[in-house]
Amino acid sequence: MENSQPVKKPNDPPRIVVLRWGHRPQRDVRLTTHVALTARALWASGFILSDVEDPSIEQTVRKITARWGGTFLFEMGTPWKKVVRDWKDNGGVVVHLTAYGENIQTSDALNRIKNLNKAVLVLVGSQKVPGEFYSSDVSDFNVSIGNQPHSECSALAIFLDRFFEGKELSKDFEKAKIRIVPQERGKEIKTDDGF
Amino acid sequence: MENSQPVKKPNDPPRIVVLRWGHRPQRDVRLTTHVALTARALWASGFILSDVEDPSIEQTVRKITARWGGTFLFEMGTPWKKVVRDWKDNGGVVVHLTAYGENIQTSDALNRIKNLNKAVLVLVGSQKVPGEFYSSDVSDFNVSIGNQPHSECSALAIFLDRFFEGKELSKDFEKAKIRIVPQERGKEIKTDDGF
Repeated sequence: MENSQPVKKPNDPPRIVVLRWGHRPQRDVRLTTHVALTARALWASGFILSDVEDPSIEQTVRKITARWGGTFLFEMGTPWKKVVRDWKDNGGVVVHLTAYGENIQTSDALNRIKNLNKAVLVLVGSQKVPGEFYSSDVSDFNVSIGNQPHSECSALAIFLDRFFEGKELSKDFEKAKIRIVPQERGKEIKTDDGF
Repeated sequence: MENSQPVKKPNDPPRIVVLRWGHRPQRDVRLTTHVALTARALWASGFILSDVEDPSIEQTVRKITARWGGTFLFEMGTPWKKVVRDWKDNGGVVVHLTAYGENIQTSDALNRIKNLNKAVLVLVGSQKVPGEFYSSDVSDFNVSIGNQPHSECSALAIFLDRFFEGKELSKDFEKAKIRIVPQERGKEIKTDDGF
């Protein structure tokens, strides 16, 4: 996993990479694409589709990144155990998002994670994850975004929004070919000609 | 749309109902189900699948609600224009989530919405929404959850988390048959025998 933990500049927030486990190539294409685009839009540094390959997702993510800017790691097919082992060997922390974990609202889990000031690998499942995910061999933290069943996409979004304290939503993406100018009515887009 | 705006008790947060537009019955089943479950888990009062019917989504949402508790309106097939007209006739406000709208992080849009203290219909699209959605005839507010392309599911999750100031994640769902006991490791569930 080269380039997964580059030198951090002072004041940079810790790096976050999202690992999606359990993707089923036909059935989950749209949902996994949404998870990957959520990771990118909300300031994660990369997305790893573990254990399987799905070129259609890679294509969408690369196309969006080329057009909307920023740098974003995309990797697929790597076994999840290898990703986790490498991440830990490099000094990173692993956070598993699960409805069974410590509630992000009622516990101090997020503060404990942030206080470590380490690169974070966020594990999001889809179908039933292996029991090992809950153990300390794999996850340093099991965090729930509420304790109701909903969506790994929503859970990731709220985790990132809280981790980055909302600042991720005003981030400027470098080398964008297209940008939205937010406004009350209608749609305004600037292309790179307009910068 | 009977029962869509019941009497509000003092200190209750305003009621929120989510309208999903543009669902394609085969292709979008999983994603729309995630949007509906996000609405339910994050304290919205109901979900309307406009213009089309998809019994598989209704079945999942009703099954989850019966098991995990709470009350949650589910409606499908109603034309979006009728839902919006009825909502406005009943004094509610309409918020359209779109990447083109006022940025929830950099604008005061959320405060302006909350200060109205009215029931909120949240419009989430999927494919390209009709241009009318942006007009004041339809949407009182166009709000973006960042101005990057990502996911209606994530956008809804962050909107609800910010609207309810995180409290939705510690909500207790009435008459639940099953509850998760959040914890650092493993899974703990209580069924209604255990209460």
